[in-house]
This record gives sequence, C-alpha cells and structure tokens, in this order.
Amino acid sequence: MTTELPGTSRPGGRTERTRVAVLRATLDLLAEVGFSDLTVEAVAERSGVHKTTVYRRWESREGLVAAALRFGAGEPWSPADTGSLVADLRRMALDVVLALTTPGQRELPTAAVLAAFQSERAAEALRDFYQDRHARAALIVERAAARGEVPADTDPDEVTRTVCGPVFYRLFVSREPVSEETAEIAAEAGAAAARAGVLSRRLPGNGDGG
Amino acid sequence: MTTELPGTSRPGGRTERTRVAVLRATLDLLAEVGFSDLTVEAVAERSGVHKTTVYRRWESREGLVAAALRFGAGEPWSPADTGSLVADLRRMALDVVLALTTPGQRELPTAAVLAAFQSERAAEALRDFYQDRHARAALIVERAAARGEVPADTDPDEVTRTVCGPVFYRLFVSREPVSEETAEIAAEAGAAAARAGVLSRRLPGNGDGG
Repeated sequence: MTTELPGTSRPGGRTERTRVAVLRATLDLLAEVGFSDLTVEAVAERSGVHKTTVYRRWESREGLVAAALRFGAGEPWSPADTGSLVADLRRMALDVVLALTTPGQRELPTAAVLAAFQSERAAEALRDFYQDRHARAALIVERAAARGEVPADTDPDEVTRTVCGPVFYRLFVSREPVSEETAEIAAEAGAAAARAGVLSRRLPGNGDGG
Repeated sequence: MTTELPGTSRPGGRTERTRVAVLRATLDLLAEVGFSDLTVEAVAERSGVHKTTVYRRWESREGLVAAALRFGAGEPWSPADTGSLVADLRRMALDVVLALTTPGQRELPTAAVLAAFQSERAAEALRDFYQDRHARAALIVERAAARGEVPADTDPDEVTRTVCGPVFYRLFVSREPVSEETAEIAAEAGAAAARAGVLSRRLPGNGDGG
C-alpha cells in the first residue's frame, strides 16, 4: 500500500520528473473532470508516462488521487499578521472565499472535497491537508492570546472551524453565494466567540453530558 | 422542464401512488449508490414502474433526483423551544449531528450534498431545502430577540450558518469526527456571536468595503 518508490527520490532525476508530471496531470484532470470520471489511462496520456509505470507506482486511481492531493497541498500558506484578531481572521476567511470562487483556482479544492466523498484515501489526504492548515492558522489565535485579545486557553482549531465553517456551508451545503461580506461576518463571529471564552480548550469528555 | 403532470394530483389515485413509489425508490437508491451510479432503469426496477413512464414524467436522471430531493424534504421539522437561545441552538446543532451520523439516516443527506456537486438541479433542490430549514430555524432567534437575549436586528440565517457551518465543515471538509461536544461548541459560538451583535442584519453592500 506504499506510494513511495524506494531509493528514487533524487531531485531533478528522471524518476522525480516522472512523478511530478504524473501528479500534475492528475491534479489537472481532477479539477477538469472530477474523481468519478478520472482514469489512470487519461493521466498516463496527459503526462506522457506509460500507464504500467503509473500503476506500478500508485497501484490504483485512488492511490494516484491521494498522492496528487498530498503533492498539490505543498504550496506554502501562512496567515496574515495585521496586529488584530478580527483582521487576521478576515484575511483568512477571504483567502478561503477567493480560493473557492476564483475561476481557474476554485476547481481543484472543490474537486478535492468532492473526491473525499467518493474515496476514503482522498478523504484521508483532505483531512491531512486541513490539519496542516489548522496548524498554520493557529498562529492567529496564539498571537491574539499573547496580546490579551482572547483567553489564553482559546482553542485555535475551534476558531478556525467557526470562521471557515460558514463559508464552506454556504458553498457546498446551503448552496448560497459567498462574498467579502461572508468573510467579514464569519471573522467577526469567530472573534466574538473566542473573546467570549466559548472556544476554549475542553477537557476530554467535557461537554458530552449535554 | 416541468416535473408536474397536469391535472393528476388526485391524492391516493394511481398516478399519485406511482409518483410516490418512483420518488421513494429514487431516494433509496440515491442513499445506497449515490448520484454517479443512479440510473433511471434501476429506479424503474425498484419501484415497479415502467421506465418509459419515469422518463415521460421526469425526463432525466437529473429531473428525477431533484424531484425526489424535494419530495424527501417534506418531513416536518421545527426547532425546540427550551426558553433559552443557547439550548435551542444546541438542540438544532444536535439534530444536524444526529442526522449526519446515525447509520440508516445519514446516507440520504450525505448523498444529497454529494449530488449537488454533480447536478445543478440537485443543487437547486438542496438550496431550496436549506432555505426552508433556515426559515423554520428563524423562530429560535425571533424568540431570543423577544426575550432580549440578542439584539432585535439579529439575522437568524447568519446564526444558523454560524451554528451549522462547523458541523458540516468537520464532516465534509476537514473530515473530522463530530459529537455532542461539536454541537455544544457550535451552539455556544453562535449564541456568543449573536449576543455580541456581530450577526445583525446588514444593509445591502455593507461590509464589502473591508
């Protein structure tokens, strides 16, 4: 079940070039046609790599898509540092709005969310991606706590979920438009909840007594 | 493009029984196999209705699924009235958590969210469903405003999005588990944001200057 090829990660080597070509082609096709209609054959054709090579290395369409999502997740992102919690959150929410609405950019994250419904391995790749994003976003709350804007035990992941949740909810659940105002409202809601102390870290099992 | 058959809505009549059989079969199959693998032939077989009848009335798989989602949305839902904003919101969030996690129940709403990625008509049906739910949920905020718990101009839809967003975000985006604690935190965040006055109705265009 490994997707690593032993001893072949020499950067710039032929194997590495092949890997990059295949994964880029997979991301392109995922954005264009989605997981349902993506085939290993089409990836082979698009990348110019023989399909037996693709199968030997990634085993299946599922393995290929999961590897491509991990590869595509590699671009750097770090939260803005404006000096204010609500402004940092607004920038983060706006980054999400733009990533999910800008033609030419929105296709891949949308296809990734969709693929996760259809493939457990794609879902794992998506989970890892958002764990990484949550870890990076945590800086926003850590800095706000250091400034005394929010309680020291504020859970950064809960703030991120409170801010990003409504943006994704509008786009993928209630199917409503999103805008700069959506980002603004979500950021203010997350900041207000954090300031009120309701997004503090909870002890395991706490809150389950409902 | 109509999905209505003129002059045939006599309740209990043969046409109505056929309609119900076909739409129930469509919902069952959607939950079982999803939109990608749903066929009009399978719906015809499952419902015992000839496929030419299905095509004549619903025209396509897309029309059939959209009609089934509207039919399936018909079950009544109304928010709990506990006398407190946060407790009402907690019950609503918990209803969402249970609907999306209980085996035997979660399959249809999950398939509906997925189908909306794959079919514009399914997306329209989903949008109408959530507009209806938002309208019903508005009672929670209206009662809280009448009690003086939140500002009178609080936007009930924004409160609903703030509460439900993180639940869906965990399940369908960051692919994290949800629990009673998820519902609790989301409800408290929505209530805190509403109380702080950041979920008030905005004038059109307001907030876009951010």
